Amino acid sequence: MRGGYFHATCTFFALASLLASGDDFTPQVDFCVAINNPNGNGAYFSNGELCKNAEAAKAEDFYFSGLDATRETDNRVGSTITLLSTNQIPGLDGLSLARTDYAPNGGLNPPHIHPHATEILTLLRGILHVGFITSSPENRLITKTLHPGDVFVFPIGLIHYQLNTANNSALAINSFSSKNPGVITIANAIFGSHPPHNREILAKAFQLNTDTINFLQQRFKGNQ
Amino acid sequence: MRGGYFHATCTFFALASLLASGDDFTPQVDFCVAINNPNGNGAYFSNGELCKNAEAAKAEDFYFSGLDATRETDNRVGSTITLLSTNQIPGLDGLSLARTDYAPNGGLNPPHIHPHATEILTLLRGILHVGFITSSPENRLITKTLHPGDVFVFPIGLIHYQLNTANNSALAINSFSSKNPGVITIANAIFGSHPPHNREILAKAFQLNTDTINFLQQRFKGNQ
Amino acid sequence: MRGGYFHATCTFFALASLLASGDDFTPQVDFCVAINNPNGNGAYFSNGELCKNAEAAKAEDFYFSGLDATRETDNRVGSTITLLSTNQIPGLDGLSLARTDYAPNGGLNPPHIHPHATEILTLLRGILHVGFITSSPENRLITKTLHPGDVFVFPIGLIHYQLNTANNSALAINSFSSKNPGVITIANAIFGSHPPHNREILAKAFQLNTDTINFLQQRFKGNQ
Amino acid sequence: MRGGYFHATCTFFALASLLASGDDFTPQVDFCVAINNPNGNGAYFSNGELCKNAEAAKAEDFYFSGLDATRETDNRVGSTITLLSTNQIPGLDGLSLARTDYAPNGGLNPPHIHPHATEILTLLRGILHVGFITSSPENRLITKTLHPGDVFVFPIGLIHYQLNTANNSALAINSFSSKNPGVITIANAIFGSHPPHNREILAKAFQLNTDTINFLQQRFKGNQ
Amino acid sequence: MRGGYFHATCTFFALASLLASGDDFTPQVDFCVAINNPNGNGAYFSNGELCKNAEAAKAEDFYFSGLDATRETDNRVGSTITLLSTNQIPGLDGLSLARTDYAPNGGLNPPHIHPHATEILTLLRGILHVGFITSSPENRLITKTLHPGDVFVFPIGLIHYQLNTANNSALAINSFSSKNPGVITIANAIFGSHPPHNREILAKAFQLNTDTINFLQQRFKGNQ
Amino acid sequence: MRGGYFHATCTFFALASLLASGDDFTPQVDFCVAINNPNGNGAYFSNGELCKNAEAAKAEDFYFSGLDATRETDNRVGSTITLLSTNQIPGLDGLSLARTDYAPNGGLNPPHIHPHATEILTLLRGILHVGFITSSPENRLITKTLHPGDVFVFPIGLIHYQLNTANNSALAINSFSSKNPGVITIANAIFGSHPPHNREILAKAFQLNTDTINFLQQRFKGNQ
Repeated sequence: MRGGYFHATCTFFALASLLASGDDFTPQVDFCVAINNPNGNGAYFSNGELCKNAEAAKAEDFYFSGLDATRETDNRVGSTITLLSTNQIPGLDGLSLARTDYAPNGGLNPPHIHPHATEILTLLRGILHVGFITSSPENRLITKTLHPGDVFVFPIGLIHYQLNTANNSALAINSFSSKNPGVITIANAIFGSHPPHNREILAKAFQLNTDTINFLQQRFKGNQ
Repeated sequence: MRGGYFHATCTFFALASLLASGDDFTPQVDFCVAINNPNGNGAYFSNGELCKNAEAAKAEDFYFSGLDATRETDNRVGSTITLLSTNQIPGLDGLSLARTDYAPNGGLNPPHIHPHATEILTLLRGILHVGFITSSPENRLITKTLHPGDVFVFPIGLIHYQLNTANNSALAINSFSSKNPGVITIANAIFGSHPPHNREILAKAFQLNTDTINFLQQRFKGNQ
Repeated sequence: MRGGYFHATCTFFALASLLASGDDFTPQVDFCVAINNPNGNGAYFSNGELCKNAEAAKAEDFYFSGLDATRETDNRVGSTITLLSTNQIPGLDGLSLARTDYAPNGGLNPPHIHPHATEILTLLRGILHVGFITSSPENRLITKTLHPGDVFVFPIGLIHYQLNTANNSALAINSFSSKNPGVITIANAIFGSHPPHNREILAKAFQLNTDTINFLQQRFKGNQ
Repeated sequence: MRGGYFHATCTFFALASLLASGDDFTPQVDFCVAINNPNGNGAYFSNGELCKNAEAAKAEDFYFSGLDATRETDNRVGSTITLLSTNQIPGLDGLSLARTDYAPNGGLNPPHIHPHATEILTLLRGILHVGFITSSPENRLITKTLHPGDVFVFPIGLIHYQLNTANNSALAINSFSSKNPGVITIANAIFGSHPPHNREILAKAFQLNTDTINFLQQRFKGNQ
Repeated sequence: MRGGYFHATCTFFALASLLASGDDFTPQVDFCVAINNPNGNGAYFSNGELCKNAEAAKAEDFYFSGLDATRETDNRVGSTITLLSTNQIPGLDGLSLARTDYAPNGGLNPPHIHPHATEILTLLRGILHVGFITSSPENRLITKTLHPGDVFVFPIGLIHYQLNTANNSALAINSFSSKNPGVITIANAIFGSHPPHNREILAKAFQLNTDTINFLQQRFKGNQ
Repeated sequence: MRGGYFHATCTFFALASLLASGDDFTPQVDFCVAINNPNGNGAYFSNGELCKNAEAAKAEDFYFSGLDATRETDNRVGSTITLLSTNQIPGLDGLSLARTDYAPNGGLNPPHIHPHATEILTLLRGILHVGFITSSPENRLITKTLHPGDVFVFPIGLIHYQLNTANNSALAINSFSSKNPGVITIANAIFGSHPPHNREILAKAFQLNTDTINFLQQRFKGNQ
């Protein structure tokens, strides 16, 4: 009962300060070091917005070790993204970093969108065929083949992909302009949604018969 | 006693994360679904910034029914605004919507300011004489008469009004560029404030004698 | 020759002021009234960011007439969007408005994303089956059936669609939280890009054979 | 003819860069030093957004002399505001400064709004009765009497005023949170607009008869 | 136990609402009045982002008295800054104010940076030799000598200083474009850090031998 | 003469649109591809804010080749930064990338500040001793030793450095949260400014005699 009272009080305080922040966006502290969530409240905490007192910040809060370790790519598309978020680096803010491993001969990072970030890809190993689609001019495809030492920019909010055409594995370092780039993988969202989309809608939108839609929904089921 | 301890802890956390957000403004979740405040802590909660876990979001959180119902306009100015805020649509963010009903033959939405939003008015029924006043060039009045199917823009922060000159009631749909447009109704703020303004100040500012100011303060008393 | 000199000078000035604007984002004028581009320099000008002197602004700059006129929906998907941008309302800023007409019995506004805006849809006529897909939790589909007077919110950056299930035409008013919501129609971007995507990439990404991909690319060709 | 060509080209360039600036707001230069407009194109240039090459910046661009000189207050309300904008300090950005002189025994800075800035007033001489009106809670008046050495904050977008009740003149330093605070003086905008407002609208909004409105419109005519 | 449960719940709520605020930055309340922190959680609360219910706001929340009192300057550099933050004015937001007192004949405000704010200095008494260093063009020094009534602007993020060359004390009013300008005093950060910097690094960076570095670290020890 | 007329016209247009952009910050185009400046107007253009028509964008505009090439580190501090700006990648926006090469046994990237960006450093080769200094708590030094595969974050606006302690050369990839991180190298700004600082000021600020200041100013002269 008393607990309920205090709960109400503190959410009230939290909101008050949030709502009033519209007027002055200058950062009020040097950095935000995310603290672990002892109660498993999920995704929000993994974004690291829950900060510790700056007095308690330590070097390890700004540090990650092991980005040089190769990742397994034995999955359907043949690629694995390792994103460093505030789960890995509590002191991260303003941008984020990832490494992407691609299987030899066709490892694919399939068409997807990062709604919150522009991406810079730096290729360290392999040969990548990359592309993105512009919205204005409408649906224009821009592609390039990358070799080690090449750098490529994928603008914020546009559909893009990478394919490894080398017969050895590929490795890229990805920099994002937000601590939380976000991702929408097109095929998974369209054909692997839960619950599944109405088949008539997808059939009309994608000009496929409902049997093909049904086949695709089976294939992508459980991707989420 | 322990409750008090937890209360302090959690407001500290909430602030820490707020203060540190100055560096990276990209949204970190798809949306914010406001949750009801069980303890009536007031205005802040009606802004809906207290969000539920995205896992618990449901279609109803993004839905409102009944905007087509005509509202009563039997009041002094002869108009009624029905604003959809996060009280009505918990998942609302980034903009807001309203309908305005006007009485026949002179229903008036009196001179007011939305400090946080530009407004687009779409007229569905009636004839509206509308206007706004620019600050630069100083005090220039821009007016227009609107008929059904007409759309008009009222720029953010400028004094504006609408008057229904049709002999039937009028209906407009209002879109605002903020989830919280805010409103300052000039006559109510000046003559209906509580406590009332010093009469000498209003007399000097508005070039009226103190008796007229007194008369007006009586008329507008209790408008808040 | 002198003309070239002045051109260089003025682009330099324009940039200087742009680059320096990072420090103070408060609007410095009441509004921006777009002026027509006499030289057909294209999309940028249609965004209306080229403003006229405020002294020259007139009521018509904030006005549009004819949003009540029904639009033709005789096209493959059976829907037509009429967006009011600064081409139609030069004084528009901060948000935008559209009407969407849907054909009876299956008029579809197919899956698409507005990268820059949250959308509020107000249904005036017809019955719409609507839905959007969340990115977190991953690929969750949220759907609702709307009737006249219903309002629904589509969060910024998420894939969404509407289908008219009534046997009469449907009409919706759409409000967007940006003057430039932008749009990426998924099927057109994936299968109708120019030049077409590499078939092996789409076949692998969408789990279809290259013949089906070829079929789809023929179907969507020329959609741009 | 060629001149016309270059004009079109350069406005195109300027716009292109402006429109693309939505993604990255970090200032790209140390400061913007406004340059004078040789052609009197008005307010825009006086805002100082037209910057000179940083190489050419000099100490005088960040300097103003004479804020200590007393200003004349022999006008109807008995107060004079001296705002330092980029007309006076070309290198100004992010905030602005003013001095306000008040006549003895009733010098008034009448009810007005700064739509773009919070104000901090520092009183150096005189006795000021000050107040502002909140919008939430609606129309609440908050007042205070200030003496030399006192500081008072007027929140952004709220109606506020100051009255000198001392029998000597008063002097205040005003700091604003924007380089362009903007101002809407309520009485002038309502009763002194050009063209004048429709009397029936003001009579209904302010609960005055049209004769009084007519009288007020005559009084405030020519204030702009 | 139950207390722990509620603590988890409320931090979760607070974060949810914070994370979702990326989409709509318009202020949702008139102002934020900071409330005192009863549990001494430190710096975050002194930034005043913990707001009270607007219903409870009172004039004193926007008020400070005594900025006219002269401050002691008997310290090593011969200057004292008195900053008004939300500790002194709970209702402060969007900008801040300070007074700086300088000792006669060489009172110095040593080279420092305000990472979050542009500063406007208004000199009321004394003679100040002031300067700042640009980053582009690289390391250019811009200086000026100020007399009473002079105003000078120090752009955001640049190293700057002031020296009183008068044989009487000096007094300046400082306005900042953020409620939290922040400060990095160069000599203290470099030579007075705790723990001290590695001497070889400073010796190489500043082209001094390690004995001089050691001497300086002793001199600046305990400045923090 | 006519050329002068067009110049005035077009800078006016450019400013008008800039000033009005305060209300709506959503990007209005997919990206900005910087175009080369044919007239050498300098730094502003190297920031790439002058964009080409999106129709003319090509893959090469988003591409850079050769980041894998080792750079020479034979300079006084023993390190070389290679920053990819819009000079190298015209389509860059929202973030930037660099490689830093360090000489064996003491290659130093001396204490400096990036006023506009948080930095993520990824170490590929060598052993780096790194550190940064917080402003709150005041002048606290946080250090770490990095090995290949390690990642470290340097928060925006804080003084930081890196020293290679390996007996082979070191290589790091640097990601920045702005397309224009900016840099202020402390020792160069303080002792290498042009014109030089007044020696008495530096002597008092750094607790050194004027002979040592003179010696340092000679050493750092011509660093700009």
